[in-house]
Amino acid sequence: MKIEFWFDFASTYSYPTAMRIEQLAASNNLKITWRPFLLGVIFNKQGWNDSPFNIYPAKGEYMWKDLMRVCEDLQIPFKRPTIFPRNGLLAARVATRFSESPWVSNFIRSVYSANFEHNQEISSPDIISSCLDCSGENVGSILDEAHSQASKDMLREQTDEAYKRGIFGAPSLYVGNELFWGNDRLERAIKWATDEKA
Amino acid sequence: MKIEFWFDFASTYSYPTAMRIEQLAASNNLKITWRPFLLGVIFNKQGWNDSPFNIYPAKGEYMWKDLMRVCEDLQIPFKRPTIFPRNGLLAARVATRFSESPWVSNFIRSVYSANFEHNQEISSPDIISSCLDCSGENVGSILDEAHSQASKDMLREQTDEAYKRGIFGAPSLYVGNELFWGNDRLERAIKWATDEKA
Repeated sequence: MKIEFWFDFASTYSYPTAMRIEQLAASNNLKITWRPFLLGVIFNKQGWNDSPFNIYPAKGEYMWKDLMRVCEDLQIPFKRPTIFPRNGLLAARVATRFSESPWVSNFIRSVYSANFEHNQEISSPDIISSCLDCSGENVGSILDEAHSQASKDMLREQTDEAYKRGIFGAPSLYVGNELFWGNDRLERAIKWATDEKA
Repeated sequence: MKIEFWFDFASTYSYPTAMRIEQLAASNNLKITWRPFLLGVIFNKQGWNDSPFNIYPAKGEYMWKDLMRVCEDLQIPFKRPTIFPRNGLLAARVATRFSESPWVSNFIRSVYSANFEHNQEISSPDIISSCLDCSGENVGSILDEAHSQASKDMLREQTDEAYKRGIFGAPSLYVGNELFWGNDRLERAIKWATDEKA
């Protein structure tokens, strides 16, 4: 049984999910499909040219406070980034192109930590290179590959697929045809997957 | 220690919270302040002339499915209303004017059940009269009072207060100056209140 994890590197509530999902899935004998996409493209289709947390300030202020409490409760380190949303395009291309590489989950967590724990600029190739150190691979080759037309197309197609499947926010979790939205639904999605398996 | 429950009778996720909050609060020795308001007025200020669940269909479709699962998990009966959002103005005026009456919590649950369990038209004075049967009071007098200018003003002022305090959705829970948004945060708000008390 598989659980699809759809995420965007700029998405705030994707952060606690990204930090938890691998361990939770493993302890329930579930496999994860890593599905990065560009949430901004989907927001554009809804008529937003920025994160709704910036467009609607009351909602945004609440979100930062809530996310702080959520991370505290889950004992996940958190520092509010000074820039939001950060551009996660390069990271998303790497994660899409190498979604089945054994190092991809470490890379994904490393990018989220850079953004939401260390307040680092994840659009910078230097930062992404550091995040790739854990791969044990040639970082330059990975970045070259991420910049290729094939990788760009893969991410574009994956974002189209997210939109077509009714994804409207991140994190989103798919178990078969069942959608679960938000870090608050991670446990419910895992339970759905284990019930389906049973 | 008190917990303020801010709600709108048309709001979908306010339904499971309304059905649970009194018992949860009582078992934690917390008092509830019942705070009806008009979410539509706040949505208007954000530029929406309808529920975002109608404006953004993918989000809406997901919400109905998610709400069904949430109610199932909580063992709260649920049937998707054929009209959404229903006009809860009259019910909100009653609940605002009589927010400290001993029967108000029964009335509130009765209106939510009418809308989200029995698919009844809660804008109808007949339906609201039935929901008031539990009060043991003279229903005609209550409705007259709800239609008074004073009751209309009370609800308008309460909605203004919601907006000024940064409420952007429902249900919202305030514990002192701490805001919690959504049925998913009811337990966290209760915990906050009991921690504050301790």
